[in-house]
Amino acid sequence: MVADAIIPFEKDPRRTLHGPTDELRLEMNGVAREAGLMSPHVAEKWGGLGLNHQERAVVFEEAGYSMLGPVAMNLAAPDEGNMHLLAEVATPEQQEHFLRPLASGQKRSCFCMTEPAPGAGADPSSMKTTAVRDGDDFVINGHKWLITGADGAGFAIVMAQTREGDQDVGATMFLVDLPTEGFRIHRLIDSMDSSFTGGHAEVHLDNLRIPAGNVLGEIGAGFRYAQVRLVPARLTHCMRWLGAARRAHDIAVSYAGSRIAFGQSIVHHEGIGFMLADNEIDLHTTRLGIQHATWLLDQGQRGNKESSMIKVHASEAIYRIADRCVQVLGGLGLTADTEVERIFKDVRAFRVYDGPSEVHRWSIARRLAPRSNPSSP
Amino acid sequence: MVADAIIPFEKDPRRTLHGPTDELRLEMNGVAREAGLMSPHVAEKWGGLGLNHQERAVVFEEAGYSMLGPVAMNLAAPDEGNMHLLAEVATPEQQEHFLRPLASGQKRSCFCMTEPAPGAGADPSSMKTTAVRDGDDFVINGHKWLITGADGAGFAIVMAQTREGDQDVGATMFLVDLPTEGFRIHRLIDSMDSSFTGGHAEVHLDNLRIPAGNVLGEIGAGFRYAQVRLVPARLTHCMRWLGAARRAHDIAVSYAGSRIAFGQSIVHHEGIGFMLADNEIDLHTTRLGIQHATWLLDQGQRGNKESSMIKVHASEAIYRIADRCVQVLGGLGLTADTEVERIFKDVRAFRVYDGPSEVHRWSIARRLAPRSNPSSP
Amino acid sequence: MVADAIIPFEKDPRRTLHGPTDELRLEMNGVAREAGLMSPHVAEKWGGLGLNHQERAVVFEEAGYSMLGPVAMNLAAPDEGNMHLLAEVATPEQQEHFLRPLASGQKRSCFCMTEPAPGAGADPSSMKTTAVRDGDDFVINGHKWLITGADGAGFAIVMAQTREGDQDVGATMFLVDLPTEGFRIHRLIDSMDSSFTGGHAEVHLDNLRIPAGNVLGEIGAGFRYAQVRLVPARLTHCMRWLGAARRAHDIAVSYAGSRIAFGQSIVHHEGIGFMLADNEIDLHTTRLGIQHATWLLDQGQRGNKESSMIKVHASEAIYRIADRCVQVLGGLGLTADTEVERIFKDVRAFRVYDGPSEVHRWSIARRLAPRSNPSSP
Amino acid sequence: MVADAIIPFEKDPRRTLHGPTDELRLEMNGVAREAGLMSPHVAEKWGGLGLNHQERAVVFEEAGYSMLGPVAMNLAAPDEGNMHLLAEVATPEQQEHFLRPLASGQKRSCFCMTEPAPGAGADPSSMKTTAVRDGDDFVINGHKWLITGADGAGFAIVMAQTREGDQDVGATMFLVDLPTEGFRIHRLIDSMDSSFTGGHAEVHLDNLRIPAGNVLGEIGAGFRYAQVRLVPARLTHCMRWLGAARRAHDIAVSYAGSRIAFGQSIVHHEGIGFMLADNEIDLHTTRLGIQHATWLLDQGQRGNKESSMIKVHASEAIYRIADRCVQVLGGLGLTADTEVERIFKDVRAFRVYDGPSEVHRWSIARRLAPRSNPSSP
Repeated sequence: MVADAIIPFEKDPRRTLHGPTDELRLEMNGVAREAGLMSPHVAEKWGGLGLNHQERAVVFEEAGYSMLGPVAMNLAAPDEGNMHLLAEVATPEQQEHFLRPLASGQKRSCFCMTEPAPGAGADPSSMKTTAVRDGDDFVINGHKWLITGADGAGFAIVMAQTREGDQDVGATMFLVDLPTEGFRIHRLIDSMDSSFTGGHAEVHLDNLRIPAGNVLGEIGAGFRYAQVRLVPARLTHCMRWLGAARRAHDIAVSYAGSRIAFGQSIVHHEGIGFMLADNEIDLHTTRLGIQHATWLLDQGQRGNKESSMIKVHASEAIYRIADRCVQVLGGLGLTADTEVERIFKDVRAFRVYDGPSEVHRWSIARRLAPRSNPSSP
Repeated sequence: MVADAIIPFEKDPRRTLHGPTDELRLEMNGVAREAGLMSPHVAEKWGGLGLNHQERAVVFEEAGYSMLGPVAMNLAAPDEGNMHLLAEVATPEQQEHFLRPLASGQKRSCFCMTEPAPGAGADPSSMKTTAVRDGDDFVINGHKWLITGADGAGFAIVMAQTREGDQDVGATMFLVDLPTEGFRIHRLIDSMDSSFTGGHAEVHLDNLRIPAGNVLGEIGAGFRYAQVRLVPARLTHCMRWLGAARRAHDIAVSYAGSRIAFGQSIVHHEGIGFMLADNEIDLHTTRLGIQHATWLLDQGQRGNKESSMIKVHASEAIYRIADRCVQVLGGLGLTADTEVERIFKDVRAFRVYDGPSEVHRWSIARRLAPRSNPSSP
Repeated sequence: MVADAIIPFEKDPRRTLHGPTDELRLEMNGVAREAGLMSPHVAEKWGGLGLNHQERAVVFEEAGYSMLGPVAMNLAAPDEGNMHLLAEVATPEQQEHFLRPLASGQKRSCFCMTEPAPGAGADPSSMKTTAVRDGDDFVINGHKWLITGADGAGFAIVMAQTREGDQDVGATMFLVDLPTEGFRIHRLIDSMDSSFTGGHAEVHLDNLRIPAGNVLGEIGAGFRYAQVRLVPARLTHCMRWLGAARRAHDIAVSYAGSRIAFGQSIVHHEGIGFMLADNEIDLHTTRLGIQHATWLLDQGQRGNKESSMIKVHASEAIYRIADRCVQVLGGLGLTADTEVERIFKDVRAFRVYDGPSEVHRWSIARRLAPRSNPSSP
Repeated sequence: MVADAIIPFEKDPRRTLHGPTDELRLEMNGVAREAGLMSPHVAEKWGGLGLNHQERAVVFEEAGYSMLGPVAMNLAAPDEGNMHLLAEVATPEQQEHFLRPLASGQKRSCFCMTEPAPGAGADPSSMKTTAVRDGDDFVINGHKWLITGADGAGFAIVMAQTREGDQDVGATMFLVDLPTEGFRIHRLIDSMDSSFTGGHAEVHLDNLRIPAGNVLGEIGAGFRYAQVRLVPARLTHCMRWLGAARRAHDIAVSYAGSRIAFGQSIVHHEGIGFMLADNEIDLHTTRLGIQHATWLLDQGQRGNKESSMIKVHASEAIYRIADRCVQVLGGLGLTADTEVERIFKDVRAFRVYDGPSEVHRWSIARRLAPRSNPSSP
């Protein structure tokens, strides 16, 4: 489906440096809907296919085979993670209002957590955005950036440090219908990656007034819900970008088999062939790691450590693959004439998104500290 | 079992630079036998536990947690691979004569394929050893080296290019009872690794006369049987050395949790903690790769490509782990005071044994060539 | 000079994805001219400063500190290499006509060697473009691509396989005044890098008629001249991009000293600090390698091997630096808000330009073959 | 000289796992003395050649071409660093008594700083050994290990935290004639490397009584002198081991040129050739870095940062070279049949000795912190 139906859209001029336009998105959604492949990760009651995590691993990788596939099938970030979060945490009324149109592709959404320095980045605890209780409402002020999909979103999930009276009650998530006064797109940020609808925006929140009924889950439980969202969201990133890496690899393999240099097709030069062999190994171990982690989730386990490990392995393996594909293609790999160049730039971001490798390594290492004991080895 | 019963033997002086002595081996076999854990990979009719490949993955990793464990449980190379080969290819009489005492630990064996330059190494097709038909016998002449376990072995499997009349009929495997005239241990070779009973020998074959009834399988089918032996043998190497890597990691984690430098235990220095995190990732992806490949074998698939990929990944990941553990331990890691030093040296060999990484990468790349097509990407 | 005078132009909107416009270039040239820093590598008779190779190493690195610096000071590729080539090989008349306006910044130029598959890429011997003698002229037909600066160039140096009568006389270089009939810019190619004036073009050569007087040097000596051009051109790439890497590093160091996460500025997290330390080491060894190779050139040596080694080391070290800087900056590093993102994309190309790493490694290895001898070690 | 005169000693049975015996050392010293090459780094007044740092870089690399060369020419660690320290800090009487016989090769020495956990390792400030003033003497108690050359040494330099009255006055260096009561070799430690005369010992200091006249330099200035010793000692390690790496590389190149596999000599397989090319690059950049740092020292600069950078680069590059050589040699590389196996094990230690890579990276990064400023990039 992806190869046949979506790849042709890759040359569509409505694919901009800030992602596919909504017009293009809706057109591709139509194709996916007709194929019965919209929102496969969502429960059937919301119009999806109700796939479990292991099944998603297969389908999302296929979707990712085109950088447009996840948008077409409505399983791209941040919407996909938001759907998961709403299904887990939102009230039935909130689900009806926010989740249903999101699951059908009628609306897009965004997730407003990251802030520019000195605010919340890899360390979310430095969040500067505040929500202050004012009667039945909360009034939110702050500055968010790298907010994927904010431009054109139908609603936002906004995270803010919350104060009731003179008490700090922790970070809270708020559901915000868009557009609305007080939520202002300051600019679209030029960035290395270019496949998310709506691009990445810088957002100013100025006295944004939200009724208490739009709190998502419990007040003060924002960081807990962020984890609920992040563990699977991290894995779905792995799945989609694994598909992209496979695409880049297939392009490189095809090229290496046909391009002649120094007397033979370059796949027969070990300098090239070994890169492709390493790609195969990286694709394989990444896929196994994803399958294992999704199996854990389907068993009802949290899989925090395993998803951290696979996030690091996948993001770095996928990046190595894309980098090798550029090198195999040579000059061609530096041009937009194949998808490899775009994939390379897009997956570079993955080593930063969803927690940079350094934060995951730190968290994996921290788990090892209690295992230590004072007796010498 | 390994941790409690075998680790104490690690300080035994009968552990030499050419591996544990047979006396030590037999003593440890007794411990394993009592625990009901001898030869777990062998069919019950030969005295084993009849584990399938996936089960072996678990048990062999545990055995490998001590470098002496595989010898103790009679699942070390080359015996373990030879048992597999004999079970697959030998006649019932040959099995009774060769396999039964091998499976019980009564005898050891060796596998004589590798030759010094310019003979058969990574490229087995350059084999120089010859077997010439002489009536009902074959007369073998040649020069083998790096023959693990030859010194003290009860029998050998010898590979030789075979000639009948004036015709070259390909490589053949011969079963050779030892000791015997014509099979001479020229010397034990000093080598980086030191955990194989009998060490590695250089062997001269001088007019070694073998009756035709001692041909293993068909004449001329030697390379085919070598594959039968190698695919699972490659995986069992991965399993055992994964256990060794885990051991080294556990020692490093324990040390890093107790050693104080610059004001805190060194596990809290990211320079150390990140190495340990990478160890965790490498252990994890290696284990998943092994489990997947053994599952393929249990399904009746050949798994050639997958076992090649995992051999490369495992041997390099395990080596990285051991190398990082040396570094975490600092000066201590350079001494024989912990097992890490020995593990480091032993696993360095794994990147060469069972086909060096370069040969596997070449073979993985070669599989990609037919996928290519002349149309541009 | 670069930091103060050129960096402000980096936010100029005339800096496009296909490089700075000629208007911007000329404006910056004016700044450089006023500072007495135009074309420092060119002999004084052509209006330059006559720096030797070692001096260029210092000045070009400084110029590269802004991606606009080399254009501003008229020492960017491909013009800089073309100036060198013309100074070495052209006749006095050709120098007056082509070199003088190039050295003064009045004209730009391009170098037409690379072709799309199946033509000349990393292996220039597969060149498909032909020049056929027709009386006093040559008629050139072919297809070139990735021709940097072709769009807007005042002249081109075109390489073509040459035939006189029915004899193939080898590759020849031709000087082509632009614009001219028969030299058609087919399109500008979207590419990863974006700092060369005129971008990269695909060029069709259709019965391009060139008088014999416009042959550069001798007929059939094209590949020899390509070497004359490439050895120093390779080094000047190293110099300029070393400056860019230092710029990225300085931005990352500054950020790491001010950005707080998990309780301290991130430079104090070893996960970040070690990346910056590795940057320092890579900058240092790259600079030493460049200085050594330029010293060889100034001694009159050819330095082919040394420039190959440093090209590989520099292009890979510079790339690692840029990649680490992206990672240190985290989300910010993925945006165009700092120069790091552009530097990262630009220097990725360096591992391909001027011979991909694989071709250089192959050529370094080939030099080792004759040293071997048949006696064993 | 090294190649011709010293390499033959490599097969001498007096070369043990704890280094060459003193008998072998003295025999080789005789060869070096006859060639006029003993102690080239020492001033002529002490019988040396008075080479400056840059000259040493050349000579020490040559000496290191055999792992026995540094011992033969009396420029091995720890003696060489001790000679430098005595020349810089000792009184004329101390120089006459300790330096003269050391420079002539009559005596060996050791440097007692490192302690087992929880004492002084990579972080020397955790030193547990104490020296307490008792009248005109100091009484030293402590536990040292990895003390290279202690077994058989004619004297030791011992570092201890010093107390006068009830005051801690800092670490002090003491000169200790050996053998003496109170300085006990507890055991020789089995270790990865095997080229230092006397091996590495564990030493117990029990009420070791030293007259105040044997204090080296000032009381309490021990760490300062350790720096005086370490900066050049670190570089001489680089020089000697660069020679060893070159030796391993030459062996690998020779083998790769003669060993045939899959139809051609393996140097022509890119999988092998690229490793050798990377060796060439690593040898080259390491040599340049050493030459630059020694030039700084000869200029009278301290070169702390540069020697740290080159220590990290050299120790890791040299290790990569040795590792690749093992891989190129395949099975042969795992045996003691060539020097490569020993070189591989010896240079592994270099990433730990003289400050592990992690400590140097940390110190390089720390220097970057002040450069940062709070304004954003």
